[in-house]
Amino acid sequence: MSEIKEQSPLWGGRFRKPLDPAAKKFSSSIPLDNRFTEEDIAGSIAHVTMLGECGIISSEEAAQILETLTQIGDEIKSGVLIFSDGSEDIHLAIEDELTKRIGTLGGKLHTARSRNDQVALDQRLYLRKAITRLSSSLTLLQTSFLQKADAYREIVIPGYTHMQRAQPVLLAHHLLAYVSMLGRDVERLNDCYKRVNHSPLGAADFGGTSFPINRRAVAEKLKFHDIVFNSIDAVSDRDYLIELASGCSIIMMHLSRIAEELILWSTVEFGFIEMDDAVSTGSSIMPQKKNPDIAELIRGKTGRVYGSLMNLLTIMKGLPLAYDRDMQCDKEPMFEMIDTTTDCLSMMKLVIDNTIFKTERLKAALHEGYLTATEVADYLVRKGETFREAHRITGELVGHCEGNKIPLSGIGLFELHSFSSKFETDVFDFLDPEKSVLLKISEGSSSHESVKKQLAYWKNKLKID
Amino acid sequence: MSEIKEQSPLWGGRFRKPLDPAAKKFSSSIPLDNRFTEEDIAGSIAHVTMLGECGIISSEEAAQILETLTQIGDEIKSGVLIFSDGSEDIHLAIEDELTKRIGTLGGKLHTARSRNDQVALDQRLYLRKAITRLSSSLTLLQTSFLQKADAYREIVIPGYTHMQRAQPVLLAHHLLAYVSMLGRDVERLNDCYKRVNHSPLGAADFGGTSFPINRRAVAEKLKFHDIVFNSIDAVSDRDYLIELASGCSIIMMHLSRIAEELILWSTVEFGFIEMDDAVSTGSSIMPQKKNPDIAELIRGKTGRVYGSLMNLLTIMKGLPLAYDRDMQCDKEPMFEMIDTTTDCLSMMKLVIDNTIFKTERLKAALHEGYLTATEVADYLVRKGETFREAHRITGELVGHCEGNKIPLSGIGLFELHSFSSKFETDVFDFLDPEKSVLLKISEGSSSHESVKKQLAYWKNKLKID
Amino acid sequence: MSEIKEQSPLWGGRFRKPLDPAAKKFSSSIPLDNRFTEEDIAGSIAHVTMLGECGIISSEEAAQILETLTQIGDEIKSGVLIFSDGSEDIHLAIEDELTKRIGTLGGKLHTARSRNDQVALDQRLYLRKAITRLSSSLTLLQTSFLQKADAYREIVIPGYTHMQRAQPVLLAHHLLAYVSMLGRDVERLNDCYKRVNHSPLGAADFGGTSFPINRRAVAEKLKFHDIVFNSIDAVSDRDYLIELASGCSIIMMHLSRIAEELILWSTVEFGFIEMDDAVSTGSSIMPQKKNPDIAELIRGKTGRVYGSLMNLLTIMKGLPLAYDRDMQCDKEPMFEMIDTTTDCLSMMKLVIDNTIFKTERLKAALHEGYLTATEVADYLVRKGETFREAHRITGELVGHCEGNKIPLSGIGLFELHSFSSKFETDVFDFLDPEKSVLLKISEGSSSHESVKKQLAYWKNKLKID
Amino acid sequence: MSEIKEQSPLWGGRFRKPLDPAAKKFSSSIPLDNRFTEEDIAGSIAHVTMLGECGIISSEEAAQILETLTQIGDEIKSGVLIFSDGSEDIHLAIEDELTKRIGTLGGKLHTARSRNDQVALDQRLYLRKAITRLSSSLTLLQTSFLQKADAYREIVIPGYTHMQRAQPVLLAHHLLAYVSMLGRDVERLNDCYKRVNHSPLGAADFGGTSFPINRRAVAEKLKFHDIVFNSIDAVSDRDYLIELASGCSIIMMHLSRIAEELILWSTVEFGFIEMDDAVSTGSSIMPQKKNPDIAELIRGKTGRVYGSLMNLLTIMKGLPLAYDRDMQCDKEPMFEMIDTTTDCLSMMKLVIDNTIFKTERLKAALHEGYLTATEVADYLVRKGETFREAHRITGELVGHCEGNKIPLSGIGLFELHSFSSKFETDVFDFLDPEKSVLLKISEGSSSHESVKKQLAYWKNKLKID
Repeated sequence: MSEIKEQSPLWGGRFRKPLDPAAKKFSSSIPLDNRFTEEDIAGSIAHVTMLGECGIISSEEAAQILETLTQIGDEIKSGVLIFSDGSEDIHLAIEDELTKRIGTLGGKLHTARSRNDQVALDQRLYLRKAITRLSSSLTLLQTSFLQKADAYREIVIPGYTHMQRAQPVLLAHHLLAYVSMLGRDVERLNDCYKRVNHSPLGAADFGGTSFPINRRAVAEKLKFHDIVFNSIDAVSDRDYLIELASGCSIIMMHLSRIAEELILWSTVEFGFIEMDDAVSTGSSIMPQKKNPDIAELIRGKTGRVYGSLMNLLTIMKGLPLAYDRDMQCDKEPMFEMIDTTTDCLSMMKLVIDNTIFKTERLKAALHEGYLTATEVADYLVRKGETFREAHRITGELVGHCEGNKIPLSGIGLFELHSFSSKFETDVFDFLDPEKSVLLKISEGSSSHESVKKQLAYWKNKLKID
Repeated sequence: MSEIKEQSPLWGGRFRKPLDPAAKKFSSSIPLDNRFTEEDIAGSIAHVTMLGECGIISSEEAAQILETLTQIGDEIKSGVLIFSDGSEDIHLAIEDELTKRIGTLGGKLHTARSRNDQVALDQRLYLRKAITRLSSSLTLLQTSFLQKADAYREIVIPGYTHMQRAQPVLLAHHLLAYVSMLGRDVERLNDCYKRVNHSPLGAADFGGTSFPINRRAVAEKLKFHDIVFNSIDAVSDRDYLIELASGCSIIMMHLSRIAEELILWSTVEFGFIEMDDAVSTGSSIMPQKKNPDIAELIRGKTGRVYGSLMNLLTIMKGLPLAYDRDMQCDKEPMFEMIDTTTDCLSMMKLVIDNTIFKTERLKAALHEGYLTATEVADYLVRKGETFREAHRITGELVGHCEGNKIPLSGIGLFELHSFSSKFETDVFDFLDPEKSVLLKISEGSSSHESVKKQLAYWKNKLKID
Repeated sequence: MSEIKEQSPLWGGRFRKPLDPAAKKFSSSIPLDNRFTEEDIAGSIAHVTMLGECGIISSEEAAQILETLTQIGDEIKSGVLIFSDGSEDIHLAIEDELTKRIGTLGGKLHTARSRNDQVALDQRLYLRKAITRLSSSLTLLQTSFLQKADAYREIVIPGYTHMQRAQPVLLAHHLLAYVSMLGRDVERLNDCYKRVNHSPLGAADFGGTSFPINRRAVAEKLKFHDIVFNSIDAVSDRDYLIELASGCSIIMMHLSRIAEELILWSTVEFGFIEMDDAVSTGSSIMPQKKNPDIAELIRGKTGRVYGSLMNLLTIMKGLPLAYDRDMQCDKEPMFEMIDTTTDCLSMMKLVIDNTIFKTERLKAALHEGYLTATEVADYLVRKGETFREAHRITGELVGHCEGNKIPLSGIGLFELHSFSSKFETDVFDFLDPEKSVLLKISEGSSSHESVKKQLAYWKNKLKID
Repeated sequence: MSEIKEQSPLWGGRFRKPLDPAAKKFSSSIPLDNRFTEEDIAGSIAHVTMLGECGIISSEEAAQILETLTQIGDEIKSGVLIFSDGSEDIHLAIEDELTKRIGTLGGKLHTARSRNDQVALDQRLYLRKAITRLSSSLTLLQTSFLQKADAYREIVIPGYTHMQRAQPVLLAHHLLAYVSMLGRDVERLNDCYKRVNHSPLGAADFGGTSFPINRRAVAEKLKFHDIVFNSIDAVSDRDYLIELASGCSIIMMHLSRIAEELILWSTVEFGFIEMDDAVSTGSSIMPQKKNPDIAELIRGKTGRVYGSLMNLLTIMKGLPLAYDRDMQCDKEPMFEMIDTTTDCLSMMKLVIDNTIFKTERLKAALHEGYLTATEVADYLVRKGETFREAHRITGELVGHCEGNKIPLSGIGLFELHSFSSKFETDVFDFLDPEKSVLLKISEGSSSHESVKKQLAYWKNKLKID
């Protein structure tokens, strides 16, 4: 933009003095909202088309503006046209460029529109794309988990509560738990999408307009499901953005848990997995190190998305209607949370795809930690003990084994009888961790049957053959 | 509970020493989860009924447990039975009481169940009730706004952006913006409800069980839409709770904005409303004060709900599957955010119901602040100016009026011509703020037509005659 | 309080209608601020003494009020006098009780004072005590770490980065890292104390008073370092409370890290520690479990303190001076964060005191994970390689060992030469992890010398013999 | 960096495959940490100098490295040398460049150092500068407030509680409250600085080193007050950064309150101030608007800093020692919170400097809202009423005036007697708001004397003549 333009912004009629340069820089949003370029031009095209259709501007005027707007859009896309950071925002920069090319006619673009409804429109258009991208990243990650679950269908691992070994479970069942979580993340995004998918355009500054516009025509051109009816509501709320921030925070919460497990599993102590060199890094000082950096970074970036959510909630707290400039500050957290979450989903997929489970080690691990104690207790229940009594007996049995450093299966029937006379020879079938998963029969449990059902369900849902 | 019970908790088989008393108090959740009493007993009744139906316990056993459980439930409800804070949690306290009454048979209650799925069940049952209550509080508040909108249907007020007077709007339109926001809050809760409404019971500790239980039968008895299929997922996630915390945070964000406006409007400076003595308080030192305390407290309590959301997100970050004791810490934020939001909704309704708008003062306010400047600009556009040029001219006109401390309507046609030759006598129709709202014609705008439509829509939706 | 009192609060002169009962309950702070009882009476005693000294009330009046206040304080302390939740706040409840006992003279207590400065005073008095208690809890926890460090002075453990085994370090050095962190936590509290330790009393509502009070006399009686000079500042800020919330959040961040390590170390996989039964709990379904619940709960409660900080920051955002009722909402987070942090510090001390390190297991662990690779690289540097080249060579060496599943010490000189001709027989001195810590010589490193110095420093600082 | 370099990072010895390009981009920190360039080079210079002094490298080697490092530093500063985003981080990029210029000798730079202590060092060096800059921005803002306080020394304004007019206060006293708050912000930064001002260098990866380095020599060269003694502590904590984030959050909390007041005061309704065109903007649709955008943006940006604090707290929660890659994620919030707070402080200064108070309007405002009611009550106390009784009488009096729409001064003695027989003719001296501030006599109150004292104190403290 030229020097003169900078001294007379489009709203400058009543002003005698230009904005202080530092204040101008401080209040400029163009370094951020230039990511709205495509949306802004699409929105303007729909708006101008409608203005022409409704006779608010002539069809010749509409045609000329549309042609030039399309041209500007193409030039921006191809990198021919770049706006300096000196512009106030992307919306004014584009309008300015239009006026430079077609003279005062350019000024008609903004008829029956305000930056308030324009920004809200651009944001909603952008969010629709972002949500779609997030959804498909989630689906891709689910697919990676499914493939691993499928590949390791027979593998039994120690299941944990309180980080203590608890019961043997199928690895696939464990992985499918994450598929379920991510499935709800997709649902949440879909629900948010419904609320984003309303057109605010035509609300103008906040009170609507006296021009005979057709809001629904614009909404239809831009493929919105509906309009935000109340014009004040259309420009003054950002609840849909906070809802998305919350959806992203929950996704990151889930990813941080997966990341934590991957980091644990790749320790020397657990040794359950091996990540490929393609997703590991080394140490500048310790030559032997192979670090699960990508998983750690994903876990760490959780903070960024949580922080963005808190940022948005703080911004909107206590703001009176209809519009306050504070709301411009929603751009940073919006882009950050979307970018971070999208990147982390892709990276997690890359990590999962490049991780192998060390089945030998997993098999060996099953025999430490008294994983079948619950089965022993349930065995006693079937032999007539109450659950509480059975639990007590088994607890003492484990205490005894631990004291003598032997596994549950290392104790003979004679000795077992000193704990309960109900033990019979068939108890030994319940002491093998790998067999014990075969005993699970409840719906959705860690049984082969349940895993098969889950795999089928998700493959069908995600349309994978 | 007796001394002996305290020294031998139900899981104590392998332990040689009781939990340190301070640690016991620290880890006890009963001061909080006794709010789950009703849910816990309902869940146990469904579980035991199913155990009997499936032949896992005999029907006589089931009958005896059910009778005693019902009795215990009644006694708790009527206040006859009270658990000391010495119990570990409400779940064990009830089971303990059962065993005290029917002996070791009581121990069969916990067959094929773990505290993990039991807690998850109680929480989901509680949340269903809480969401229903929140929804109806939202609806009641919407109704209050609608009644005010109806009552003040003809009143025009100054609309604001950047807290600066911007354009005249109908008070009803402004109030209806809040009705729309609260409407989305209801939608969000409904969406969350869908995800809450799945039964986790039968997941046992996390791997399911080898008893031939019927998870769907329990779910049906408790009127769940479905079960949480994957048993690990069923006990290890709290995403639905964070989603609700986020829904509550957005509600509070909306309430904080209403509160802010009420506080502003009740200042001497604005003077737009008068709150009834029933919702105002005084000062212990300044006898003339009448303070909008309830609105201020609602605004302040926003922090509590935001804090609860952050609490839950922090708790769940990086937790490995399947269950970690950290998750017990979800109770405090859960109850706090639900109680606070529910209370604030009722209080806001009370405030709205007890507030009158000072229509004389509002009428007077319309004539300060050059509210019709946009209409003047639009007038010029209709006379052939581009919007940008019209904006510039009107800006200069306002600057002139402000310099001379006169309203826009205080300037004559002759002088108007020095700003633009396009001004004609009909311009004066556009300078009266109260008439200017009649000019709005776009859908959803601040027009009488739009307000009528919104009132009809919401009355129908909320089933008000 | 009597029925009549409830209908005529002390500020009710200009009010025609009582506060709605639900609103009264909503706005009452007595369930929380009755924890200020002691502070409130101490503050009132200092205030009345000063009023008498300054001749604002007669010395007889002062004496009578003081006597009755002391009496009331004693009765509350001994549980004889209990205030119903029906009172507005503890301050009015006490004044009310005073008036009930000595008639209208009781009304003189509030001369030259407002609830604004009274609440601020009570809070600062309470915070001083709380900070002192927090500090001594920190010191006690440091002491527990020091005792363990002392007891295990000779033990070498694997040190980790990225959760991967990195280098051998002295266990004591690792524990002393936490002592250092907790030491900074104490410093931070001390710095916060300085800012808390100013008396706000005498600011009255916010503008000071026309009574000839002596603010410094009151401050001295209450052992404040100084007064908050500016009377508006004295009642309108809560920065010191947010600063404390931040200090508590950092403490919890530190505790969550210790907790995480304890949880990891008590897994079967690590097996580095054994927590006593006194600080462990079992599972209601899995009889073999011994869970590190206390550590998990501490980690989980981190969320509560972070949430309180966010709560306070949200409350104070954008509040105009001098006082808004929103500020009453600072009580919940204040008590929660202080109680939670204080409890968690004691519990962590209990856990540390009841934890033993399994030295055999730790010794064995040193020989997995190529912990001495850095020493090998440094060896090569001393033999003339650049660090980068040495690092590369050692990396290849580790890759080779890993591929062949042998430890670094399992490779002979001949084979070593195929990696670098610089290896000589003395290299074998660098391959033993336990010897390798003896090689560290830099200040503050994991050397016996450094640990000795740290132990001496802290024992002296904490005054332990 | 060359293609080959990219495929063999400095830690690549044991790796067979390069890092996936997307993972490389994801984990690269150079777009952020290139802001550490100056600190990194300064740190390396101190390190190499010490290595030379201690004979760990020869003095010739040291000299050559130092010369080249200085050269590289100069070239980066002058923009001649720019690193591509392809580098892993700024630390490796600089070392790489060094090696490109002086061959394998460059590899000696990293002797006895790790990226862990190097990053910690750079960060602490950067934070020292940042804190100093923040402090001086705070001081400049304090100075602006002082100048306004001085300029409007005689002006009386309505003071508010609950946003209701409460008592007349001196404008200067109100502004000085902010000076006090900002003064504590400076103190908090100073306290944080003490904890930042320790050198971590020499901790190497976390265990120290077997090279005979001199940590204190490096610390001295870099003007650190001391070293972080414990080497694990030196690389594994970020408490000082969270402390700074909290300090910045409190600053923003204060700024958001000032901003709120400026926004309120510039409404048509209050009309207390006029912001210069240099710090105001207009509307793209409403030509009459003059918006306090800068103040709104400052208020909005509060969310960003709060979010950064939450980000950091989340990152560090539950991280095991000694270093996890998650910690790299501290850069974004660090730079954001420092930049935002620094900018907002400058912008607030610009706004304050460009704001004038409309003294006529302020004078007029004093006569609405019964501001002197407290003085009337105090008058009655002096005439012998108890404070509570005086409060009640005055409350009724205000109720009466309000009902009749007259000011307190509009009521005659005869009528006053119907409220209390204690009123005498001298009461009229207490009803004039401007005179009433003269009655304040307590220390730190809103009296001319107190304002004079505060001005003197701060001018002396800030060294302003």
